[in-house]
Amino acid sequence: MEKRNNLKRTLLVALFACQCWGQPPGNCKPSSLNIPGAPFPCVYPDRRVAFRVMAPSAQKVQVRLAGTHDLTKSPDGLWTGTIPPQVIGFHYYTLSIDGAIVADPATRTYFGSGWHNSAVEIPEPDSDYYAAKDVPHGEVRQRWYLSKVTANWRRAYVYTPPEYDANSRTRYPVVYLLHGWGENEQGWHAQGHVDWIMDNLIASRKAKPMIIVMDNLNAAKPGEDASLYSARSIIARPSLADVPPPIGAPRTGTAPARSPFPTNWGATFTEMLLNDLIPMVERTYRVAPGRENRAMAGLSMGGMQSFLTVLGNMDKFAYLGGFSGSSGGRGGTFDPKTSNNGVFADAAAFNRKMKVLFLGIGSAEGPGTKTFSEALTSAGIKNVYFESPGTAHEWLTWRRCFHDFAPRLFR
Amino acid sequence: MEKRNNLKRTLLVALFACQCWGQPPGNCKPSSLNIPGAPFPCVYPDRRVAFRVMAPSAQKVQVRLAGTHDLTKSPDGLWTGTIPPQVIGFHYYTLSIDGAIVADPATRTYFGSGWHNSAVEIPEPDSDYYAAKDVPHGEVRQRWYLSKVTANWRRAYVYTPPEYDANSRTRYPVVYLLHGWGENEQGWHAQGHVDWIMDNLIASRKAKPMIIVMDNLNAAKPGEDASLYSARSIIARPSLADVPPPIGAPRTGTAPARSPFPTNWGATFTEMLLNDLIPMVERTYRVAPGRENRAMAGLSMGGMQSFLTVLGNMDKFAYLGGFSGSSGGRGGTFDPKTSNNGVFADAAAFNRKMKVLFLGIGSAEGPGTKTFSEALTSAGIKNVYFESPGTAHEWLTWRRCFHDFAPRLFR
Repeated sequence: MEKRNNLKRTLLVALFACQCWGQPPGNCKPSSLNIPGAPFPCVYPDRRVAFRVMAPSAQKVQVRLAGTHDLTKSPDGLWTGTIPPQVIGFHYYTLSIDGAIVADPATRTYFGSGWHNSAVEIPEPDSDYYAAKDVPHGEVRQRWYLSKVTANWRRAYVYTPPEYDANSRTRYPVVYLLHGWGENEQGWHAQGHVDWIMDNLIASRKAKPMIIVMDNLNAAKPGEDASLYSARSIIARPSLADVPPPIGAPRTGTAPARSPFPTNWGATFTEMLLNDLIPMVERTYRVAPGRENRAMAGLSMGGMQSFLTVLGNMDKFAYLGGFSGSSGGRGGTFDPKTSNNGVFADAAAFNRKMKVLFLGIGSAEGPGTKTFSEALTSAGIKNVYFESPGTAHEWLTWRRCFHDFAPRLFR
Repeated sequence: MEKRNNLKRTLLVALFACQCWGQPPGNCKPSSLNIPGAPFPCVYPDRRVAFRVMAPSAQKVQVRLAGTHDLTKSPDGLWTGTIPPQVIGFHYYTLSIDGAIVADPATRTYFGSGWHNSAVEIPEPDSDYYAAKDVPHGEVRQRWYLSKVTANWRRAYVYTPPEYDANSRTRYPVVYLLHGWGENEQGWHAQGHVDWIMDNLIASRKAKPMIIVMDNLNAAKPGEDASLYSARSIIARPSLADVPPPIGAPRTGTAPARSPFPTNWGATFTEMLLNDLIPMVERTYRVAPGRENRAMAGLSMGGMQSFLTVLGNMDKFAYLGGFSGSSGGRGGTFDPKTSNNGVFADAAAFNRKMKVLFLGIGSAEGPGTKTFSEALTSAGIKNVYFESPGTAHEWLTWRRCFHDFAPRLFR
């Protein structure tokens, strides 16, 4: 009897599934981030995006992507809708199903805002630099290590260049590369394709082979509050629009430009990096020694962390990059004489030590980073300003930043 | 004005969030698979599981885990409920929110049934063998390769043992290890903790250091139908209960025991494995040569694939394991003279070639595998039968299977 009911249900649902799974309209191409076989979300040539969600008894289904968009219900329980053209690149999004904020089951999930979101990729016409091509490929290695500072097991991902295993005597320079707020140590390879960017740069001899260590920005000692890094923040701030504007974004309204970060923010990560991560990496991998073989960079909050760590430890790093985030440790308005404990005060001395100081930003993020770059230049501090045309505080900006940054390293 | 509204909304939601995020009851422990900071789902000492879902306007919210369980709405828009004691181990689950089947945003997601499900871990009292311990750790390496057979880029994960980089002249034996239906190449390390199982076995000298290659069972040539592997199947079969019973599970009802697999199922994977994957692995890693250094195993559909591949290619493998799946290539009832193209017909010859033939199963999966093992024994075929006490067709069964299987290899 149970079996018969199951069969009946299977047949009914199978019938249903034919409509449910369906095919996208002819010129709407399934997003590359969809689960295997899923036709929706799909992207039109004009960059509109069509969604389809199965929610038979729901009263309201919305897509939350650059605003909130109502979907329309059809009698078969499917909700559909097409949203206006989106900017090229990788966009997190979520569904609201009768007020429940959830991932769309039709896409792979990506850790952002502290939990596993859905995402859609609007193809970039010139995406060749992060495509999987028939060139030698490096590896991204999952590396667990025990941190004494945070007293827990931590996971880093380590990119090793294509010839790493074959050249068993060669030592390589290292970039410590950080994700942004609410993301994790998987961001740079899962969302950013940093491995393919490096493989392609190395194959075309545009960048030196290097090791890239991607760790988790979240570091708290026992008893310290780690909620800054968790989804708790996003629950208190229902959309990214409520998060304080990214570094460099135009400020609007009259709210004070108060930092969301506690006074000693980032100190534990720096301590963990210097005492646990770097020693583990140099013990485990064939790393070239010394500050001139060590870079640090990151995006958004990870860029702030990189500025905080490197500018406070100039004896340990010779390269620094901030992608949509470069105000770490500055403490308010930039003043070349006093900011970051006066590290910029003697410009000539700074320029001798810092081989590349890189400030990247998306053009849609506002003038803050450019202003900072110009202030540095006025103070005699050499720096590279890179602007990603037409992109905002998103992964395409950061892929482009890294692609411009990496060839400048370890020359 | 917009800013003021945002502020107001933030304050309101922050107020709300205090209740929403909350804390679990004192003796209910957050599942280890939750996103950082999430208190629910949590597991009571008696293995009941409590859920909490934010769905302010929903009419019906259910948890789908070993049945379907209604949650109860409170005036604040939170839905809560506690479900009966669950079996120890790793369980996929989903939410139904007004009929929409989605992942619970409070957990990490795991690829199963062709998409990113939620999961909860009911702690096993004796879970030491797959715990992260202070022993030398190997790596799980992401390896992209271009397959000529399937004409696309494929991704494998490769476990290398702790001393792999240091012993740069040592060659290691290899296990090719497969996931089950609807899962992918990440299953064995994300759900199965195979890396920690191996690290612990190697540290205690219970298993030989070895390389483990975890590829994706899904292999289709251009034009071949890959839908067998995709979520399309699960949409036509709304719960795993509707999938044909796992190998070894008791059959009920009068439905014919028809295989869900097309006649030539698995042939493309075998061709890809032999022509693309194994050559790539042997070119890329320091692999010991020959069949006596090569094993293949898998769970469920991956076990079926392993039996199909190995029994059809006895010149290439000397070890074979099926975990809740061992009927591959058999074609109906087992007959030692004719099954698998007669490979078992000469028992002595078979036993000389096959160093370990391993059949594992969860005790809750029924007697089929034991019956098969006994039939093999009756036919003079040496085999190892392993039964995981109290577990079903789930990852804890397969962790235990691998933990018993690995020490037997390459002796």
